[in-house]
Amino acid sequence: MDFAPDTTTRDITDRVRDFLADEVLPAEPVLAAQVAATPGDWSFRPVVRDLQAAARGRGLWNLFLPPGGPDGPGGLAAERGGGLTNLQYAPVAELTGYSPKLAPVAMNCAAPDTGNMELLAHFATPQQRERWLDPLLEGEQRSAFCMTEPAVASSDATNIATRIVRDGDEYVVTGRKWFATGAMNPDCGLLVVMGKTDPGAARHRQQSMVLVPRDTPGVTVVRGLTVLGYDDRDHGGHAEIVFDDVRVPASALLGGEGEGFAMAQARLGPGRIHHCMRALGTAERALDLVRERAADRVAFGAPLADQGVVREWVATSRIEIESLRLLVLKTAWLMDTVGNKAAMTEIQAIKIAVPRAVGQILDRAVQVFGAAGVSGDHPLAELLAGVRTLRLADGPDEVHLASLGRAELRRRAPYLARVAPELSTVEGDPT
Amino acid sequence: MDFAPDTTTRDITDRVRDFLADEVLPAEPVLAAQVAATPGDWSFRPVVRDLQAAARGRGLWNLFLPPGGPDGPGGLAAERGGGLTNLQYAPVAELTGYSPKLAPVAMNCAAPDTGNMELLAHFATPQQRERWLDPLLEGEQRSAFCMTEPAVASSDATNIATRIVRDGDEYVVTGRKWFATGAMNPDCGLLVVMGKTDPGAARHRQQSMVLVPRDTPGVTVVRGLTVLGYDDRDHGGHAEIVFDDVRVPASALLGGEGEGFAMAQARLGPGRIHHCMRALGTAERALDLVRERAADRVAFGAPLADQGVVREWVATSRIEIESLRLLVLKTAWLMDTVGNKAAMTEIQAIKIAVPRAVGQILDRAVQVFGAAGVSGDHPLAELLAGVRTLRLADGPDEVHLASLGRAELRRRAPYLARVAPELSTVEGDPT
Amino acid sequence: MDFAPDTTTRDITDRVRDFLADEVLPAEPVLAAQVAATPGDWSFRPVVRDLQAAARGRGLWNLFLPPGGPDGPGGLAAERGGGLTNLQYAPVAELTGYSPKLAPVAMNCAAPDTGNMELLAHFATPQQRERWLDPLLEGEQRSAFCMTEPAVASSDATNIATRIVRDGDEYVVTGRKWFATGAMNPDCGLLVVMGKTDPGAARHRQQSMVLVPRDTPGVTVVRGLTVLGYDDRDHGGHAEIVFDDVRVPASALLGGEGEGFAMAQARLGPGRIHHCMRALGTAERALDLVRERAADRVAFGAPLADQGVVREWVATSRIEIESLRLLVLKTAWLMDTVGNKAAMTEIQAIKIAVPRAVGQILDRAVQVFGAAGVSGDHPLAELLAGVRTLRLADGPDEVHLASLGRAELRRRAPYLARVAPELSTVEGDPT
Amino acid sequence: MDFAPDTTTRDITDRVRDFLADEVLPAEPVLAAQVAATPGDWSFRPVVRDLQAAARGRGLWNLFLPPGGPDGPGGLAAERGGGLTNLQYAPVAELTGYSPKLAPVAMNCAAPDTGNMELLAHFATPQQRERWLDPLLEGEQRSAFCMTEPAVASSDATNIATRIVRDGDEYVVTGRKWFATGAMNPDCGLLVVMGKTDPGAARHRQQSMVLVPRDTPGVTVVRGLTVLGYDDRDHGGHAEIVFDDVRVPASALLGGEGEGFAMAQARLGPGRIHHCMRALGTAERALDLVRERAADRVAFGAPLADQGVVREWVATSRIEIESLRLLVLKTAWLMDTVGNKAAMTEIQAIKIAVPRAVGQILDRAVQVFGAAGVSGDHPLAELLAGVRTLRLADGPDEVHLASLGRAELRRRAPYLARVAPELSTVEGDPT
Repeated sequence: MDFAPDTTTRDITDRVRDFLADEVLPAEPVLAAQVAATPGDWSFRPVVRDLQAAARGRGLWNLFLPPGGPDGPGGLAAERGGGLTNLQYAPVAELTGYSPKLAPVAMNCAAPDTGNMELLAHFATPQQRERWLDPLLEGEQRSAFCMTEPAVASSDATNIATRIVRDGDEYVVTGRKWFATGAMNPDCGLLVVMGKTDPGAARHRQQSMVLVPRDTPGVTVVRGLTVLGYDDRDHGGHAEIVFDDVRVPASALLGGEGEGFAMAQARLGPGRIHHCMRALGTAERALDLVRERAADRVAFGAPLADQGVVREWVATSRIEIESLRLLVLKTAWLMDTVGNKAAMTEIQAIKIAVPRAVGQILDRAVQVFGAAGVSGDHPLAELLAGVRTLRLADGPDEVHLASLGRAELRRRAPYLARVAPELSTVEGDPT
Repeated sequence: MDFAPDTTTRDITDRVRDFLADEVLPAEPVLAAQVAATPGDWSFRPVVRDLQAAARGRGLWNLFLPPGGPDGPGGLAAERGGGLTNLQYAPVAELTGYSPKLAPVAMNCAAPDTGNMELLAHFATPQQRERWLDPLLEGEQRSAFCMTEPAVASSDATNIATRIVRDGDEYVVTGRKWFATGAMNPDCGLLVVMGKTDPGAARHRQQSMVLVPRDTPGVTVVRGLTVLGYDDRDHGGHAEIVFDDVRVPASALLGGEGEGFAMAQARLGPGRIHHCMRALGTAERALDLVRERAADRVAFGAPLADQGVVREWVATSRIEIESLRLLVLKTAWLMDTVGNKAAMTEIQAIKIAVPRAVGQILDRAVQVFGAAGVSGDHPLAELLAGVRTLRLADGPDEVHLASLGRAELRRRAPYLARVAPELSTVEGDPT
Repeated sequence: MDFAPDTTTRDITDRVRDFLADEVLPAEPVLAAQVAATPGDWSFRPVVRDLQAAARGRGLWNLFLPPGGPDGPGGLAAERGGGLTNLQYAPVAELTGYSPKLAPVAMNCAAPDTGNMELLAHFATPQQRERWLDPLLEGEQRSAFCMTEPAVASSDATNIATRIVRDGDEYVVTGRKWFATGAMNPDCGLLVVMGKTDPGAARHRQQSMVLVPRDTPGVTVVRGLTVLGYDDRDHGGHAEIVFDDVRVPASALLGGEGEGFAMAQARLGPGRIHHCMRALGTAERALDLVRERAADRVAFGAPLADQGVVREWVATSRIEIESLRLLVLKTAWLMDTVGNKAAMTEIQAIKIAVPRAVGQILDRAVQVFGAAGVSGDHPLAELLAGVRTLRLADGPDEVHLASLGRAELRRRAPYLARVAPELSTVEGDPT
Repeated sequence: MDFAPDTTTRDITDRVRDFLADEVLPAEPVLAAQVAATPGDWSFRPVVRDLQAAARGRGLWNLFLPPGGPDGPGGLAAERGGGLTNLQYAPVAELTGYSPKLAPVAMNCAAPDTGNMELLAHFATPQQRERWLDPLLEGEQRSAFCMTEPAVASSDATNIATRIVRDGDEYVVTGRKWFATGAMNPDCGLLVVMGKTDPGAARHRQQSMVLVPRDTPGVTVVRGLTVLGYDDRDHGGHAEIVFDDVRVPASALLGGEGEGFAMAQARLGPGRIHHCMRALGTAERALDLVRERAADRVAFGAPLADQGVVREWVATSRIEIESLRLLVLKTAWLMDTVGNKAAMTEIQAIKIAVPRAVGQILDRAVQVFGAAGVSGDHPLAELLAGVRTLRLADGPDEVHLASLGRAELRRRAPYLARVAPELSTVEGDPT
């Protein structure tokens, strides 16, 4: 066991750190100004494009892309910019969470595109890859993932009501989706749509995915939703989309019929790691802000930094960050060494624990900032809203807690019988 | 001791309940539509004016106004619509919190006007009352309270940097305020401004208040601030205001020089009761929403209402509401019987405990609603933002906790020596 | 609504307060010395008998006994010492919790005898009352309630395995009970035993109760159990008891066959009030101890009372006590005015909330005391153990949370339709 | 970064696991019986001696002993049984926490002897080592650490009141200590006593340590203290000891005058790791117990394992264990690679976080067990008491939280400037 990062990690994180300090942080007020100047605009503002160019120039592009994939070891990744293991990428993702509105997209490492690119890299046909994956890897286009539905509890995939019906050489898609993040962005060309091809099949074989061009007739992007008051207009928002008798060729099916659930699970594993790491970077941002504020702000005769309650908050936050970071890193390592499926328990664990803890850390930071903390003048309020949403994204915490608890209660090998103590012997349920 | 509400309370709450059911709740979607149709508008929309007329017609106007006041018992109140004790008004305020964007303003019982009207009723000269109080009581005008400043920790009143300097027959006001709730509303004519007239005086004698017409030269309403993403554009927002060499006649002073702190304290007592009661009504709204959702929504084979965790949440929420409601009611009763100053400990207690608990109740409700819970389609997200802000309004919780704890640790009479067990023997610090 | 205690309450609490200060608190070290000097002894020590005599002399005897009962209004109570309403008795019970090892038993108001006396007062035949109730009211004998069984989850009454089988003129009792509080005391003559007479009957009609003299052949008091390390040897401990073919005459049946569950429910309502009130008195004791300690103890240059975290703890404790006390008092008032059954929701609410909060209050107090807090030198450790047990007594919190949550989720009348706002419209499940 | 344990760790943990399964767990009821049969006895019972022999036979002896030390790399350790790094020893310590009353002492890895042996290994003269360290390493004798005093807040070392005064060739020790764990054991020959040699020196140079034979005239072992009701009679209890003009030769001084504080700090680092790892093993024991109970116990129609709340508890417990275990392991690794002083922040972090989390895990386990959980029939109650005490041992949590928070607030390097991301840049305060 060794907690020292390897040379690759040190090198890449140093470079990302420089990029953040030199270019991303100074760009934050620029983005704010550009967004303020362009109401009603859901596309990337110029500053994002500038940062993307800078990131590519620094070799910080597509870093999320794991080695290997269908092109063989290193094939796709080496060519496209990636090639880091999950364990190496994790601290990169954390750093991008320090400026979450700019750093991930600047480095072409933003959700939901990363997950969609991974899906395509693993399951797309060569034609599908050429049509969709290449422009995504180049940052020329964006994509959205259409899973959640307004009418049902979508964390239970058997509830999905959208139908994907084979009709001759075509699939016909009918349904209503929402919280399709990024789909308001005019650059978003691809909708990955989850629906049921066979409602009568076994529980986890009913679902399939199709690749639907956003401009297909019958696709209506109804509106942008707000998330705790934010429309996230600066990076494509969250769309409600109606699919009304939408016809795509049979070749638009991703993977095979009935494989939708399994592909969704495969997609979510790395996505959760990324979300969690970014959230930890966000927590570090909050602590940096608190540190500065607490040193300067005086109340009742002393700086806030001298108050016992502030000290206790900061200490608690530090402990939570340090312990959860290690759990995320171990999860990344498990994914690299034993695979996403075997790491299911840990993936669920971080999915539950990190957003909850970071939400608390941000909430305490807001208290330190007083009224400024809930205002738009400091990033805390918007960060808090973003992290709050993670407790619902990919299913509410409670679904994962129940699944993890059930698995733990069924664990067959008692503690003393574990062969490999670094591996959990709980086999997670797919959720 | 008797927990049954009196006849007046039963009667007035029945009437408020009818008003809510008949007119306010149906008006909620109307307000949403009118706001959506009028971007950039910070004034009351027509539906608010309609509801105000209806409320007056039902005799539900100015109910917050306590009996007595400078006009003698019942004088002002009887004439203007009020006359309820704090204990009688408390359940009315709770009911208005069930629809917090409409019910309070419809009944002319919305913050910050209520607090400002109380200030004027207690401390204004006859000329000031005629000029400012009468139109406020008629709902013809709105007002704002300018206390918080961006540059300092304003919960410590000695930090206030705004200066109010006597210059001949005038006062000259200079400073920057923010979070002046309601001040973006064009109907807002009056700014009650707290500043220092004598920075060298004793800690709580440095501050004074002046009544500044919003259109006075030198007053610049800079912008509307957001609160966790919401601009609260439907009821006047939260303004940042610069006072640059603003001159008002000496007669604009409210009360005497050096009495600003004491008047602010007097103003905040009832305000905290009102905030807390409304928050409890909001919590009841959340529980009603959860009850409906949990009955209908099915996940993993059963309605949410059958899931142990949902049951536990709902039970916990119910317990918190019931116990805190009683504490607020007792606080109201203390204010009626022994006065606001003697009720200081209890006022601080509810100020701390209620927003915290209601925030948790709303947060759990959001989890039950999933993605819909953070969206703008259900009221929960905005309610959550509103209640979160209460943990900072009038000073962050931590200031009140420290004050209450200090008082409790200094309490002289041990438990067994208490003469009147219904009265706390802690005398609170002014905060 | 009126939060002032009535004259009776003021008078009786003043007298109880005097009794505590004059006699009970000085007797605490005497009890400790007498217990230390008599290992292996489970009976009342002389100091308890002395205090009982003193309490009777002061008219502080059987105060728990409600007015009315089978003898008509005031009949039994007037004669025996009681006659207080639940609302009047509640602050008395709270005061006794300030010295929970001595004050309740001194005033013949200790569990489980109070509950057993109420059972007998309501359901016993004249012969049963003469035989068992009279000596209990006189304090000449003690009793135990045999409900919990080691082999099953006894909070679900359908799990009860003890059988009570009619055989001619006798009932034959067979089973194993434990946590029969007080049954190690040699003065304990009566065991009230819950068992099943008809396992095939409806869920809540299977159970009956019989009155079993502790010296009946076949009764074996196996051992005294410890509760978090304490054997509670000073007041009769907690016994495991085997009933092996124990024969009692048919006249030993309490109430009718199949009425055991209903009688147990009736018994538990007031018992929960009493437990909760005493727990609040215990919390006040902890705060008094903390206040003294925090004033005197210096660490890192300042008394503990000056530390922010201690202040916050004390403030939080005060808020919890004040709000929960009111909820308990309202519950008592509901029991007096609408009856135990209609107060079910509130009874469950306090049963859940009070031990949890008081446990936290004591836990924080222990931290203030450092190592001394967990030692036997200060009362905190033993008080903590006692309150921890309340989270399990009469069923674990979780059973009550589930029941209360289920009822709340089924509540039919929405908030705005409530006729009598002081009454919960939730009808609790029997648990 | 690599989360796989090395070969040494795998081998040693396999062997410890076998020892636990084969010998320690079967010995638990034997210990209970031997303790029950010998009231008033504070010494090791025969079963402990038998297990010690077995552990030595299996080469599981003194494993806590780090490599190196004053004898050069591997010197002392290789000879005596140890030689594991902190990172290798950590999972061993965790395993011993699965049976904390037997496994640590069986393997001569029990507190406080381990800490005392480390102290002696680092700071003792050859004569002191021969006299005291050798018999301790052989398990022939026990020792106690006399730091905490009843009269002062001992977590602040400047409060220590015990005096160690040089008088010619002797030191004279005067003071009162308590919670000297193990000192009731008649095999305890050595008391390591912390006191002040120079109260006028700098804050952390006032203290020194002397080695006092327990049978020195003037030493009075007053009594055994209880800890939450437990006297821990099976392994030497917790003693109060008076030092009344106790004279030891000058050669009994450990290290130099004024080095007491620094030596205490050095001693506490590894001790905290050990405590935390053992606590995690205890948490695993609780989860194994819960798993078994929840599968078997039926309430309200279903096994406890099917109840949502139980699942959520178990999931939460699993997450806490996994994340905190990693933090402890990283702390061990830091101690191995950069030293105890540089690992101060992490040592404080685990000292705070682990006992708190494990306390919650045990508390939830108690709820699953119902009344049995607080009884002496299952290990949970006693484990809970033990872990609760850890929140006070070596200073209450709050002292460490304040210290960690202060350090974090003073951290100079912002997040983006960190050179070595695996190292915290916070330099802890000595506490």
